Amino acid sequence: MRIEQDCIGKLAIDDDALYGIHSKRAVKNFPISNEKVHPLIIESFLQIKKAAAQVNRQAGTLSAEKASTITAACNQLLLGQHQEAFIVPAIQGSAGTSANMNVNEVVAHLAEALTPGIHIHPNDDVNQSQSTNDTFPTAGQMAMLKKLPSLLKVINGLLDALEKLAQQNKNVLKVGRTQLQDAVPTTYGRTFAAYRSLFKRDLARLSAVRNGLAVVNLGGTAIGTGLNATRYYQTHIVEQVNQLTQLNLVQASDLIDATQNCDIAVAFSGALKALAVDLSKFANDLRLLGSGPQAGLVELHLPAVQAGSSIMPAKVNPVIPEVVNQVAFEVIGNDTTVTLAAQGGQLELNAFEPIMFRDILASETYLERGIQTLVTNCLNGLQVNRTQTQRYVEHSAIVATVLSPILGYTKTTALIKQALHEDRSVREIILDDRLLPAEQVDRLLSPESLLHGQSATKRNIKEG
Amino acid sequence: MRIEQDCIGKLAIDDDALYGIHSKRAVKNFPISNEKVHPLIIESFLQIKKAAAQVNRQAGTLSAEKASTITAACNQLLLGQHQEAFIVPAIQGSAGTSANMNVNEVVAHLAEALTPGIHIHPNDDVNQSQSTNDTFPTAGQMAMLKKLPSLLKVINGLLDALEKLAQQNKNVLKVGRTQLQDAVPTTYGRTFAAYRSLFKRDLARLSAVRNGLAVVNLGGTAIGTGLNATRYYQTHIVEQVNQLTQLNLVQASDLIDATQNCDIAVAFSGALKALAVDLSKFANDLRLLGSGPQAGLVELHLPAVQAGSSIMPAKVNPVIPEVVNQVAFEVIGNDTTVTLAAQGGQLELNAFEPIMFRDILASETYLERGIQTLVTNCLNGLQVNRTQTQRYVEHSAIVATVLSPILGYTKTTALIKQALHEDRSVREIILDDRLLPAEQVDRLLSPESLLHGQSATKRNIKEG
Amino acid sequence: MRIEQDCIGKLAIDDDALYGIHSKRAVKNFPISNEKVHPLIIESFLQIKKAAAQVNRQAGTLSAEKASTITAACNQLLLGQHQEAFIVPAIQGSAGTSANMNVNEVVAHLAEALTPGIHIHPNDDVNQSQSTNDTFPTAGQMAMLKKLPSLLKVINGLLDALEKLAQQNKNVLKVGRTQLQDAVPTTYGRTFAAYRSLFKRDLARLSAVRNGLAVVNLGGTAIGTGLNATRYYQTHIVEQVNQLTQLNLVQASDLIDATQNCDIAVAFSGALKALAVDLSKFANDLRLLGSGPQAGLVELHLPAVQAGSSIMPAKVNPVIPEVVNQVAFEVIGNDTTVTLAAQGGQLELNAFEPIMFRDILASETYLERGIQTLVTNCLNGLQVNRTQTQRYVEHSAIVATVLSPILGYTKTTALIKQALHEDRSVREIILDDRLLPAEQVDRLLSPESLLHGQSATKRNIKEG
Amino acid sequence: MRIEQDCIGKLAIDDDALYGIHSKRAVKNFPISNEKVHPLIIESFLQIKKAAAQVNRQAGTLSAEKASTITAACNQLLLGQHQEAFIVPAIQGSAGTSANMNVNEVVAHLAEALTPGIHIHPNDDVNQSQSTNDTFPTAGQMAMLKKLPSLLKVINGLLDALEKLAQQNKNVLKVGRTQLQDAVPTTYGRTFAAYRSLFKRDLARLSAVRNGLAVVNLGGTAIGTGLNATRYYQTHIVEQVNQLTQLNLVQASDLIDATQNCDIAVAFSGALKALAVDLSKFANDLRLLGSGPQAGLVELHLPAVQAGSSIMPAKVNPVIPEVVNQVAFEVIGNDTTVTLAAQGGQLELNAFEPIMFRDILASETYLERGIQTLVTNCLNGLQVNRTQTQRYVEHSAIVATVLSPILGYTKTTALIKQALHEDRSVREIILDDRLLPAEQVDRLLSPESLLHGQSATKRNIKEG
Repeated sequence: MRIEQDCIGKLAIDDDALYGIHSKRAVKNFPISNEKVHPLIIESFLQIKKAAAQVNRQAGTLSAEKASTITAACNQLLLGQHQEAFIVPAIQGSAGTSANMNVNEVVAHLAEALTPGIHIHPNDDVNQSQSTNDTFPTAGQMAMLKKLPSLLKVINGLLDALEKLAQQNKNVLKVGRTQLQDAVPTTYGRTFAAYRSLFKRDLARLSAVRNGLAVVNLGGTAIGTGLNATRYYQTHIVEQVNQLTQLNLVQASDLIDATQNCDIAVAFSGALKALAVDLSKFANDLRLLGSGPQAGLVELHLPAVQAGSSIMPAKVNPVIPEVVNQVAFEVIGNDTTVTLAAQGGQLELNAFEPIMFRDILASETYLERGIQTLVTNCLNGLQVNRTQTQRYVEHSAIVATVLSPILGYTKTTALIKQALHEDRSVREIILDDRLLPAEQVDRLLSPESLLHGQSATKRNIKEG
Repeated sequence: MRIEQDCIGKLAIDDDALYGIHSKRAVKNFPISNEKVHPLIIESFLQIKKAAAQVNRQAGTLSAEKASTITAACNQLLLGQHQEAFIVPAIQGSAGTSANMNVNEVVAHLAEALTPGIHIHPNDDVNQSQSTNDTFPTAGQMAMLKKLPSLLKVINGLLDALEKLAQQNKNVLKVGRTQLQDAVPTTYGRTFAAYRSLFKRDLARLSAVRNGLAVVNLGGTAIGTGLNATRYYQTHIVEQVNQLTQLNLVQASDLIDATQNCDIAVAFSGALKALAVDLSKFANDLRLLGSGPQAGLVELHLPAVQAGSSIMPAKVNPVIPEVVNQVAFEVIGNDTTVTLAAQGGQLELNAFEPIMFRDILASETYLERGIQTLVTNCLNGLQVNRTQTQRYVEHSAIVATVLSPILGYTKTTALIKQALHEDRSVREIILDDRLLPAEQVDRLLSPESLLHGQSATKRNIKEG
Repeated sequence: MRIEQDCIGKLAIDDDALYGIHSKRAVKNFPISNEKVHPLIIESFLQIKKAAAQVNRQAGTLSAEKASTITAACNQLLLGQHQEAFIVPAIQGSAGTSANMNVNEVVAHLAEALTPGIHIHPNDDVNQSQSTNDTFPTAGQMAMLKKLPSLLKVINGLLDALEKLAQQNKNVLKVGRTQLQDAVPTTYGRTFAAYRSLFKRDLARLSAVRNGLAVVNLGGTAIGTGLNATRYYQTHIVEQVNQLTQLNLVQASDLIDATQNCDIAVAFSGALKALAVDLSKFANDLRLLGSGPQAGLVELHLPAVQAGSSIMPAKVNPVIPEVVNQVAFEVIGNDTTVTLAAQGGQLELNAFEPIMFRDILASETYLERGIQTLVTNCLNGLQVNRTQTQRYVEHSAIVATVLSPILGYTKTTALIKQALHEDRSVREIILDDRLLPAEQVDRLLSPESLLHGQSATKRNIKEG
Repeated sequence: MRIEQDCIGKLAIDDDALYGIHSKRAVKNFPISNEKVHPLIIESFLQIKKAAAQVNRQAGTLSAEKASTITAACNQLLLGQHQEAFIVPAIQGSAGTSANMNVNEVVAHLAEALTPGIHIHPNDDVNQSQSTNDTFPTAGQMAMLKKLPSLLKVINGLLDALEKLAQQNKNVLKVGRTQLQDAVPTTYGRTFAAYRSLFKRDLARLSAVRNGLAVVNLGGTAIGTGLNATRYYQTHIVEQVNQLTQLNLVQASDLIDATQNCDIAVAFSGALKALAVDLSKFANDLRLLGSGPQAGLVELHLPAVQAGSSIMPAKVNPVIPEVVNQVAFEVIGNDTTVTLAAQGGQLELNAFEPIMFRDILASETYLERGIQTLVTNCLNGLQVNRTQTQRYVEHSAIVATVLSPILGYTKTTALIKQALHEDRSVREIILDDRLLPAEQVDRLLSPESLLHGQSATKRNIKEG
């Protein structure tokens, strides 16, 4: 064991540990969950450390030798080595200082190991020109940004799957349902296309939020004034990080503001929540339309992906939409947490960023994986039960709505009530009562008329 | 009393009531709160009815006489007459049908009164080519849009007030506080400017959401297929409404989607929530910095706007920020409601739009008024207590952070601990211990150095 | 106009206004919504003022004459006179001081008017021995308590309605549905009884929370130390209020705690939220089981209470459950607001009680009225569609679950799959394949066996 | 690899895997997070399986040999062996079927391994008389119950720590603060005692909810009708589980209700949320009172547990309360998730129990650990800065409130305003202006008088 010291006192550390006293104290102080700081945050921190070493060298505040060995250490760690040295918990007090110091300590120790004889100080060298106040929010936003493309990609996959379903069922008539009551008909082509339109907006919302996430406070050091960073560093560090990451980060024009406010996180979480709401509605619809196999709506056949019951043989349940619902509920709950944490920030800093980053990264991950399994294990094999949908449409009395412009709302009401009461078809009653000629009825009640009501109406006016 | 009839049965209505059986049933069915449908939704409905009459006449599906008298009735109602006839509660089942039928009935009855002998049917004539499915969401979005400019205006007023405070306190040094602990200094000029930067983003977010709100499903009639509307109507109705309202509405390209999904409402409510979070953080800061008058931070003097206590004489409380906090909490709660309502939508329609519209319109109103009173009754008379802020900065040991690049993190830590422990100034200890020459210390601890750390650091590196 | 003065300055007040300068300032400061402080809070305040006058007289700190005229004024106001004098908004900063002062001013002015020549001071006399810190939370809790019995009463009405439905449908078989897929059968008798069991727990939860709500901090004056109240007053005031109100209030044993913490409000709102969740689930089930009239589950006929569509003739929607859902969503949103407000309290007081009281009182009201309309306009006329429920049960393949203990899970799985695939009945296949004797099959598939599986199983084991 | 088959098809399983086809499908279907089903749920399942084997044997539906080997397998697993076989993810669709089948499969395979030649069927034998519908909710509730005692224990530890702080600071005067403005004084003894009173109520609320959690639906099998379970099993299984676990479970009187409703989970989560709200308020107060070290309130010295900043030397932050805040935010967010999941249940089952159980168990864990670190790392070493608190009290003008009953509210207001304006003590002004005799002033402003205002007031009335 080696002994390290900080402003609190001394602590024994395992000889071969790359982390140091700050990291170990954090483990002791925050034993909340077993989850460590997200690997993407660690990776982003390392990219910042590497970039900072390079810029500090250029600025003349860090020796070439130190910069070189820090860079080498970062490179090793970025390759995935020594991940077990990042021991600090995801849910931590300290506004991220523990996460930052864990990285500083590991880089410093590894750098010293790589270049025997050199002394690398976690704060003076690795953390030079930096503060947790700017590196932690920046690393957090970088991590959220890095997760985004794969989320957007699965949403695009969702759009494709819906497009395919819309094409496959282009002309499959279905009865509409408003307020869960029979309404005028539509097609499954339009239905799947409508979901596609919905998720296209989610894609646009998330893409739009990306711009906000890319604005970082790196260079602001403590509270955003840039204290202890050179002008050179301040104006070059973001560009250097961009070269390493291709993330197209932009330095905030008001670093004081960017350091203390978390509205970007709130807005991003809000966009994820909107996606969750939409997914939940979609999953609800899938489960509802797929209800059955006998005593349900039985319009959709979701692929059977596992046995449904430990006691009821042959039961198959919509387990994929069910897990999507739960992902949505979790994301919505995470948004509540993010809201509370953002609202709780005070003065020059928000101390609750760790839980925000944890929850948003979890939301991104869950949404991505939830959508992925939805596409792969549900939509890709989904079949519309055309027999059933046709039966519903054929027996529907509410299609007589199309006659309302001719017969009037009051008379059509009576007609539909009669049809429902006597369990007869609307067509039959009209013909029996000679309300309209057969040919006109057939034309009006044809799919073309029902789905493109406007032409029907136009005709009807002339006819009426 | 006159007797009216619908598909349910008969009901007696007051002879002079402009509303009819559908409205009266809704009052009986939904006795939840005393709040009626928002006047801006009623107004928007009337504009739609008027526009529809005109377009239907042009399409040849409504006689010129009927169109003319419907228009006249709408005009009277739009001038604010007969508002007592809009009796339907804001919190209603029926997905807005009750609200729509209330308007249809009032317009029909008034139109008949204006043109004796004419018969105007609430459904066949006033509601011609329309469904609640398209008119209610459209009217709701129109109402939300109409409230937006005044909200944006007060946010602009907030920006102005903050700009003014930033100018007034441009050079007033203040101690920074991160995690509520003393940090490196900044100025009140930067502090107020940072709030301004924050609320500028809220302005941008709300302006961006406006585009989404302007996309309406008018013309889709039931479930979005456009059944019973002529092609002419479908392609002209939104433009006609725009002429009446200057709202620049855009017809959704996918009307099926726009009829069943409420993600626009979720996104808009989310942007309002983000504003609420930011206002709450700001209000918290004002209350904290204004704490006192003796046993608090005492940095800000908020204007005294009312006596603070029924028992403690001369007490003055930050009542304006307190009401802003509560507005924020209410808006955040409303967002939860909107989220649940949106998530609960099923198949071709969301039946829970009434509560969404009610809560979002309430949020807009509360935010507007909350910001207005914040600017008028708090920010406009706010004074920084310069004596106190200067005292804090002068006694601050943490300013020695600026020495860290020269002395190193470890030695500077010891220096600050000593200063705090012995209750001496950092400067005094440095000079006593001859750590640095007096001139350099003065330069480093000067406001210029502290606020523009980069130049200080640059010098220090050369000096160090 | 008369001129009044406070520690802020002077203000002109209408000559005939019973309120005074404090009230008028609050109206100006808090123009958030048009809603005034809830009448039950005002009433409770008046009861406190009356009780305080009496106890202060007994304690010898208020003259008999003053006590008498204050009492007389309170009596008039408690009879409902001069309600227009209570002008202070429900959403207010000031932790309720504005509400308290409004009452103090109105009582003082009215008391002076009743007894010419007497001088009654709003603070020294009407508010004697009191602070807003104790009277506002107490009045708020009194108001919430007063609303509770009518809420509990409608829940009892709900239980009765469900009991009646359970009796009426005691033996009506229905197919069970888990995860929206067909499951083993049950009866509508059991189904309605299950909802009854659920709401009985809500009744119990709300009754349990009542005890917490009855614990008040009256007598604590400012921050709970009881400063400026006599020992006599402190020990007699709650009892005096109880005599006036029969509310059985209990004085908190730790007045400091009771003054600053709002966990009682959180717990009460939580119990209301649990009720909301249960109502929403119930409303969802009603809407789902009542879906149709042709293309839905069509198991329940909800009473038709209003026409369902402005465009689709004869459409009838489940508008009563829909409004219940929305009430539930609003109550859940209010709970979020209460949570945020409670969490935001600081040190010796929570300044955000006004919004908590407003939202909880709204939740109580909405729930009461929502349940009332649910019972009256939906449950009381609800009919089970026995034709449909019987058809579902008869065609159900999943009832073969009852054979699983005899045939084994694997073979039963194959049997059910075959039945579904070939669209034949399970019974038919069993007999055709001679898996079991006809008599045994009939006995096993009988309702008695299906609903009381244990006896069937027992038999089967012996038989198997 | 061995091949297994279910109603979906065939799947290859590792030869040495104890789990089977159902488990493996779940892993493939629900790749949402890396978190497995909570070990306490698995343990509870195993206890149910073991108890069921024993009761089924007694009922004569399971052979003694099978019961014996199932019991042996459960015993091994309950000792912690083969935990890697429980592979099913915590966030799963299927309403827990995957979790249940994972346990059934592992027990069956292990049982067969323990008794060569025997055939144990996961469904027919291990799951005999059971359904996921009853075992999963029961196992979930058992897990939540098992976590409760350690949570209650740390709350008791919190009460002890607060009691100790209250004793240590019994007579330490402090200025009260309402709405963050100076108010009448109190002591730190009362302050810590007040927090203790608060958390005692949380203890009571959680203990009360325990009763609800102990009511389980075990014996209800599918949907609660008890199909396929013998009467003997139904009436003995809960007692058997109690013998194994000492959990004092009670079988629900209405099993249909208990199977489909999750209000117990909502109520439990609500009680956890209330605790979270209270902890967050407490943590906020600690951070606020501990603000400093120079430019804050500086009333509390929280123990320094780690260095506070990577850039600002010697900075120490309130990291323990900060992590407690974040735990609170997470718990509140989890409550939102639970609310949504509970509300989403439909008809005879709630398919979203997995996310509810996951989030509630996480909340219990986080709260327990958060409180533990709060007590150990913060409260146990917390010191009141008596110099500072005394200074605040001595300079406080608001203590003149005690003179209000003698001088009147108006005159006292003027007195305090003068004291604040002229920066003089109230006592000095009173004596200079000869408002009251020195002896009386001293008595009135003494701590005894200020903290026990009632006696002072009593005297004052006589004197006044």
